[in-house]
Amino acid sequence: MSRLPIIIDTDPGQDDAAALWLALAHRDRLDLTFVATVAGNVGLDLTTANALRILDAAERPDMPVHRGADRPLVYDLEIADYISGPDGLAGAGLPLSSRAAHEEHAVDALIAALRAAPAPGLTLCPLGPLTNLALAFRLAPELLPRVERIVTMGGAIGLGNVTPAAEFNVYVDPHAAAIVYGCGRPIVMFGLGVTLQALASHDQIARFRDLGRCGRSLHGMLTRPRPGGFGTDGHPMHDLCVIAWLLWPELFSGRDCFVDVECAAGPQRGRTTIDWNGRTRRAPNAHVIATVEARDLFERVLEAFARLP
Amino acid sequence: MSRLPIIIDTDPGQDDAAALWLALAHRDRLDLTFVATVAGNVGLDLTTANALRILDAAERPDMPVHRGADRPLVYDLEIADYISGPDGLAGAGLPLSSRAAHEEHAVDALIAALRAAPAPGLTLCPLGPLTNLALAFRLAPELLPRVERIVTMGGAIGLGNVTPAAEFNVYVDPHAAAIVYGCGRPIVMFGLGVTLQALASHDQIARFRDLGRCGRSLHGMLTRPRPGGFGTDGHPMHDLCVIAWLLWPELFSGRDCFVDVECAAGPQRGRTTIDWNGRTRRAPNAHVIATVEARDLFERVLEAFARLP
Amino acid sequence: MSRLPIIIDTDPGQDDAAALWLALAHRDRLDLTFVATVAGNVGLDLTTANALRILDAAERPDMPVHRGADRPLVYDLEIADYISGPDGLAGAGLPLSSRAAHEEHAVDALIAALRAAPAPGLTLCPLGPLTNLALAFRLAPELLPRVERIVTMGGAIGLGNVTPAAEFNVYVDPHAAAIVYGCGRPIVMFGLGVTLQALASHDQIARFRDLGRCGRSLHGMLTRPRPGGFGTDGHPMHDLCVIAWLLWPELFSGRDCFVDVECAAGPQRGRTTIDWNGRTRRAPNAHVIATVEARDLFERVLEAFARLP
Amino acid sequence: MSRLPIIIDTDPGQDDAAALWLALAHRDRLDLTFVATVAGNVGLDLTTANALRILDAAERPDMPVHRGADRPLVYDLEIADYISGPDGLAGAGLPLSSRAAHEEHAVDALIAALRAAPAPGLTLCPLGPLTNLALAFRLAPELLPRVERIVTMGGAIGLGNVTPAAEFNVYVDPHAAAIVYGCGRPIVMFGLGVTLQALASHDQIARFRDLGRCGRSLHGMLTRPRPGGFGTDGHPMHDLCVIAWLLWPELFSGRDCFVDVECAAGPQRGRTTIDWNGRTRRAPNAHVIATVEARDLFERVLEAFARLP
Repeated sequence: MSRLPIIIDTDPGQDDAAALWLALAHRDRLDLTFVATVAGNVGLDLTTANALRILDAAERPDMPVHRGADRPLVYDLEIADYISGPDGLAGAGLPLSSRAAHEEHAVDALIAALRAAPAPGLTLCPLGPLTNLALAFRLAPELLPRVERIVTMGGAIGLGNVTPAAEFNVYVDPHAAAIVYGCGRPIVMFGLGVTLQALASHDQIARFRDLGRCGRSLHGMLTRPRPGGFGTDGHPMHDLCVIAWLLWPELFSGRDCFVDVECAAGPQRGRTTIDWNGRTRRAPNAHVIATVEARDLFERVLEAFARLP
Repeated sequence: MSRLPIIIDTDPGQDDAAALWLALAHRDRLDLTFVATVAGNVGLDLTTANALRILDAAERPDMPVHRGADRPLVYDLEIADYISGPDGLAGAGLPLSSRAAHEEHAVDALIAALRAAPAPGLTLCPLGPLTNLALAFRLAPELLPRVERIVTMGGAIGLGNVTPAAEFNVYVDPHAAAIVYGCGRPIVMFGLGVTLQALASHDQIARFRDLGRCGRSLHGMLTRPRPGGFGTDGHPMHDLCVIAWLLWPELFSGRDCFVDVECAAGPQRGRTTIDWNGRTRRAPNAHVIATVEARDLFERVLEAFARLP
Repeated sequence: MSRLPIIIDTDPGQDDAAALWLALAHRDRLDLTFVATVAGNVGLDLTTANALRILDAAERPDMPVHRGADRPLVYDLEIADYISGPDGLAGAGLPLSSRAAHEEHAVDALIAALRAAPAPGLTLCPLGPLTNLALAFRLAPELLPRVERIVTMGGAIGLGNVTPAAEFNVYVDPHAAAIVYGCGRPIVMFGLGVTLQALASHDQIARFRDLGRCGRSLHGMLTRPRPGGFGTDGHPMHDLCVIAWLLWPELFSGRDCFVDVECAAGPQRGRTTIDWNGRTRRAPNAHVIATVEARDLFERVLEAFARLP
Repeated sequence: MSRLPIIIDTDPGQDDAAALWLALAHRDRLDLTFVATVAGNVGLDLTTANALRILDAAERPDMPVHRGADRPLVYDLEIADYISGPDGLAGAGLPLSSRAAHEEHAVDALIAALRAAPAPGLTLCPLGPLTNLALAFRLAPELLPRVERIVTMGGAIGLGNVTPAAEFNVYVDPHAAAIVYGCGRPIVMFGLGVTLQALASHDQIARFRDLGRCGRSLHGMLTRPRPGGFGTDGHPMHDLCVIAWLLWPELFSGRDCFVDVECAAGPQRGRTTIDWNGRTRRAPNAHVIATVEARDLFERVLEAFARLP
């Protein structure tokens, strides 16, 4: 089986770390080309520093990190440090990296990678706001056919988290999300409806502690105190689902739907309206995942993390 | 125990019929002052005719029916005959009434009833678009304290039915809903999140057939073919929940929340954004019901219908 | 020549006073049925008290004043006392009336007057927010054909006054304006584009002082200090134009246009988008006045005021 | 006097041609670095071909043309060939160029030019939708201080042209306009309020015919038949004003204002709300030009065109 070439575009973020490590643990199946960073959970300097810290923990100093957009397209940046902690990786216990990011902008790197990609193209895994993808799609529209698929965490079919209407990633840059959901390429969407099901059990959480450095770090993030008002008791590993789906799609189920992104300021900002029952008769633009077998998922994640430093 | 004085404001509609009959079956506990009609599932002439047909079936020629608003406040009327049938009572098998509606407008009747109401006031049970209530509240704001409570069917915490974003009643007249949700009186909201749980079992549906005229009529409505694309196989009895809650609140559970109504035209029109987790820190304006014990509910409804003609 | 039956719906307001007096001065041509009040420039208690004060000054204790809506349909009331003064009639120097308003609600009075109106019906002259008209049109839609014409002050083709986008009357209750502009009856619209041209000259202003009580009162209002930031140095007599057009349409010119009212909250709230060049190809719903011969206008107004007490 | 380094970003377009020629005629004062193209009046292939045709007419084969964005950020491209003709230069009578555009993307060229610019930086002259500038500002935010000023045609204080609310350039890509108006650099805005005043007299138009190739071409564009419904009889030279202001600011007057761009779909899309009277108390983000001395302007333009081939 050939390895799937992917790019992870991320704003770490605890669950971003879990996703990156899972991808690195499966080098046999996933060919991570580079890591792009974007402003989101925290500012760009921190998300970039965090990407480097996460790669260091996995002993991957060879993996390029490209800095991307430092803010959303239209709205001012709003961050989520109330959930991810002041440095974005609360509980991780990871030292700063001595490495610096690559000097090429993430959008330029993305365009170059698409241009160089053999058929059927690259799989893009955006785990934060979709700003970098949106910029690349507008700068190099001729390369869109080189995008094999976009697998992304963002949105919600029901309740949001940052507001009652919106999930954080889409809320932060709804215009970028509108661009990406309108791009015409296959999209697999992981919204809060499924990612809030992706909770490890207490027993599974405890077992991460006994693994190596990455597992211990994940354990620290999964067991830190969590602020209230987010509709769940545990620490959902939203972004992890994106990589898990690439590896084990059989653990998930969903439906092809039309997804509409609300861009206007106000209480609906960043809302993803998901036409689950086909009421609008608009052609689907995404495969919306609705369920995950969470216990199996974390068993496999534990297995994968056992292979990491 | 004293009887609770209520007004039912309705656009029958099959589930409106069920609600009306349930209220009439419990004359011991509910004091139905009059029935107001409004345009919604079908036009005002039909909803008014249907209210009279439903009362005839229950042998209540004494109960006044007041015609109300023939259209929403701002938007043009859109009806739902694709679901309720061309006459609004598909499957009911009820003859037309020989009786006419009262000549007083429903809004005037509502204002008069509020003015005459003893403390603690009237309980309003709107089962359709909220146009009549909105007009009354703006014409006679000084009588708002005479409204003890508004128990209403409308809205959704997640998927809508008429659009992915909106439930029909709020979609049809979102401005009226915004007025009512902003009125400052206690509101109990039954959205699709709970009413789609209120499905009778096949066994329970069959037992309605063996009751009297009202039961047989309900059976006819519950067993007619249902169009696809509404996210449920059975015939949900949305409006029935409103009256059931007055009788048996112990079958339901919910939470005080801030509910925001989206009035603007476009894909979000009529969306109710429900702040279930208190993210906006806005004071609750409604008690949003989330669960119902459906089997128990229909056992009690069967018992009640056994007392009807 | 038969007298034109009119109703003035008003939120006095200095320019409302001028309009009322002008109508009263032309009893030979205008048959003022009653005065309705609405919340707007100041709250309903004050606008009602002011209507009575204005009628007293003109020695018309016989003219009924009906209190109407105390707030807009959907939005909370915002007043303009920064321009009209704390009592709404800054500079008028008028004593309070000893008379009370009629006990019938203005909306009920409006409906009754329409029901009683002979063909071709009543001319409605709303000078404030359109709340009363909107309520009447929704409560008694069958009487709309009895409205001969609506001549109203509100909106703007370019700059607003309360915001850069909106004129005050439409801003305060855009939903009511949307209802009225969608009612299908002939509308003559006086927006800021024309009313800001309706400035009396210094010489003309001085001549009001030498007239009777009403003229002196108007002089006081025209010469009070004016707050900055409204794009004009003088005191525009917006509402006066409505009555002046009934008397002397030859002083004005305009065009049939489609007028769209923006209801959504945000910077465009209350904007009237006027399709002056027919770009939308939507059927006109109003005759939008664009020019006035201001000098001639005030000569005729002076002549009329000379007949008032 | 040193020459002002400028970049013209354009979607020719007849008035874009006039602007380009005027800039080329004043090599003594304006140092045009390169021409960027964008989709707008017509698609990107045509606007790029037209830029080359216009430069050929002025015998400037040395001037680089960089292709930019082929569509707006979020909305689908809408063009204005009903006004600019199927090829975008109706009436110009210019042959196609044998030259091709530069292979570097306009956004990359813009970023490179900003990086290389000496203090006080580059003056950007966008004459079409602001897509290229918006992309550059988001990709290289650190270079914003190198933008000395943005002088742009777009928006309207009153009536729009493509809709009653919006001028074409802002309508096509309101999100890009929102990004640019929020960028924090000095902006000089030419909206329809002033550009519709920039009409050459019949006598002046005739004199262009007797000049060289560029003058004759402009004459052809100024005398072609014009479709109705745009609120002016002549052919306004909107974009010309941008370059004219760089040369002769004394012909214009305006005011510092806060300009808000409406991005939402619907009748207000692309509206520029200009706070001419400071009602919002928001800090100005643009110098909005309101008047031009049109006769003097075209005398100077005629003089300039006399120097062109």
